Amino acid sequence: MKCRKCGATATIELRRHNAAFCAGDFLDFFRNQVREAIRRYRMLTPGEQVLVAVSGGKDSLALWDVLIDEGYQTTGLYLDLGIGDYSRESKARCETFAAGRQVSLIVSTVAEEIGAAVPVIKNVTRRPPCSGCGLSKRYLMNRVALEHGFPVVATGHNLDDEAATLLGSVMHWQTDALSRQSPALPSSHPKLVRRVKPLYRLSERETAAFAFLRRIDYIVDECPFAQGATSIAHKEILGRMEEASPGAKHNFLFGFLDRARPAFERAEGIALNECTRCGQVTTGAVCAFCKLADQIKRAT
Amino acid sequence: MKCRKCGATATIELRRHNAAFCAGDFLDFFRNQVREAIRRYRMLTPGEQVLVAVSGGKDSLALWDVLIDEGYQTTGLYLDLGIGDYSRESKARCETFAAGRQVSLIVSTVAEEIGAAVPVIKNVTRRPPCSGCGLSKRYLMNRVALEHGFPVVATGHNLDDEAATLLGSVMHWQTDALSRQSPALPSSHPKLVRRVKPLYRLSERETAAFAFLRRIDYIVDECPFAQGATSIAHKEILGRMEEASPGAKHNFLFGFLDRARPAFERAEGIALNECTRCGQVTTGAVCAFCKLADQIKRAT
Repeated sequence: MKCRKCGATATIELRRHNAAFCAGDFLDFFRNQVREAIRRYRMLTPGEQVLVAVSGGKDSLALWDVLIDEGYQTTGLYLDLGIGDYSRESKARCETFAAGRQVSLIVSTVAEEIGAAVPVIKNVTRRPPCSGCGLSKRYLMNRVALEHGFPVVATGHNLDDEAATLLGSVMHWQTDALSRQSPALPSSHPKLVRRVKPLYRLSERETAAFAFLRRIDYIVDECPFAQGATSIAHKEILGRMEEASPGAKHNFLFGFLDRARPAFERAEGIALNECTRCGQVTTGAVCAFCKLADQIKRAT
Repeated sequence: MKCRKCGATATIELRRHNAAFCAGDFLDFFRNQVREAIRRYRMLTPGEQVLVAVSGGKDSLALWDVLIDEGYQTTGLYLDLGIGDYSRESKARCETFAAGRQVSLIVSTVAEEIGAAVPVIKNVTRRPPCSGCGLSKRYLMNRVALEHGFPVVATGHNLDDEAATLLGSVMHWQTDALSRQSPALPSSHPKLVRRVKPLYRLSERETAAFAFLRRIDYIVDECPFAQGATSIAHKEILGRMEEASPGAKHNFLFGFLDRARPAFERAEGIALNECTRCGQVTTGAVCAFCKLADQIKRAT
């Protein structure tokens, strides 16, 4: 197998692109896909201050790596979920990366902000842990960005993540979720920063290869609470479809973005208020984060 | 396990309805679902002449059985695809059923109409056999209905069929197919009869149970060309999802019909012409059936 660009021996084959690359040309391909994502959705402007949400995993650290090399002014944000060794090790990976690239890292601790760490939230709510955790992460990403004056948060969601989320929304035809699923969410309120996903064109296998070739030390373990999550079941289904027909995931996500998403966009926006407790944006009077914090306070 | 209706020992459990029924109450449940389908989509009017497309399988014969008992004026249509023993046996099942219920059966032979049987069409077109076969069936169902003055054709598509078709359309976001997927397609041209699917609320397992309990002699074998069809792969995927979460198929199909399908309905209709060759409706000048007939003529 030869590299499509230079003809040297290929290190990675990308079946859905019907291509193979040597290490150097794969890194170029990867960065080009990120550039194309940013260009196509006008995600970032040159020199913009970007808050990069990092978990210590391959995706978010690969993203940070590319954005630094592309010349963006980046700061990392690590949200400490308080999930035992998993959180300690993933935080250490982020700190090592930041030190190595001489970029700053903000650490925000969920337990300090909401009153309890994710394992406690899980017990208090008696709901799947991903629910309270996701809520807290979205809330804190936005609040930290606002407090530090970042106009935009970049996350490491890849093609597989986005396709799995889409499959989940489609299986229940959650039209609200479908209307919001996009590689770039604009700011719909002065207190909501933009959210962008520059890796949406790249698969999990590709971000892993990139992180490996760039010698990024990332945490390989999945979150211990992820076991049994529907998103994993959906990834398995899509993985089998991809096996049978390379490009299936890509066509599923990109076909949605190109042809179907416009059909779900709301004619009118939703009314957005500021939470009477914390001042962050909510559709009701008190935001979901403050409600969860109350619930934790009562229970602990 | 007890029957939800009468408390007797149940013969069948319907997990997605969180119910179980004895034989008699299951038959009632089944017929009620057909009535509800017909009512909800205004599929048929009382006493209407209905052409029922029958393949000799469980679904279409169960449908015919219910429609007769509901008092509709039905005639069966068997399309002989010329697929060896499979076609001979399935035709015999339709003839036996029609004779037993004293209803008429029209037999139309694909080879006579288009110039070759399905196995030959498959070789001539070098495309998956389901493609030319489906085209011929849709064409002939409509033409036979027109020629005999039926305003509507009923087919035996069940919940699993419809959910699998939907999954296929969604994986490629075929917006045209999505806009057309419905339990009832109105007539959009004087030469197009209505098409209705009164079994769309009932699963494959339920139609099999109904046919069994009603002692309908149906052909159990799948079409020999169906092996490897994507629709079967999609049914397997949905089957696994149903296993993990009963009602998944139902929610997927019904959620689409209730909440998403309207988003795909075309603002303007497509221009429909009459085929210059056969006079049937087409979007071009010559219809796909006549083009396929030409291709067969040239090749044989």
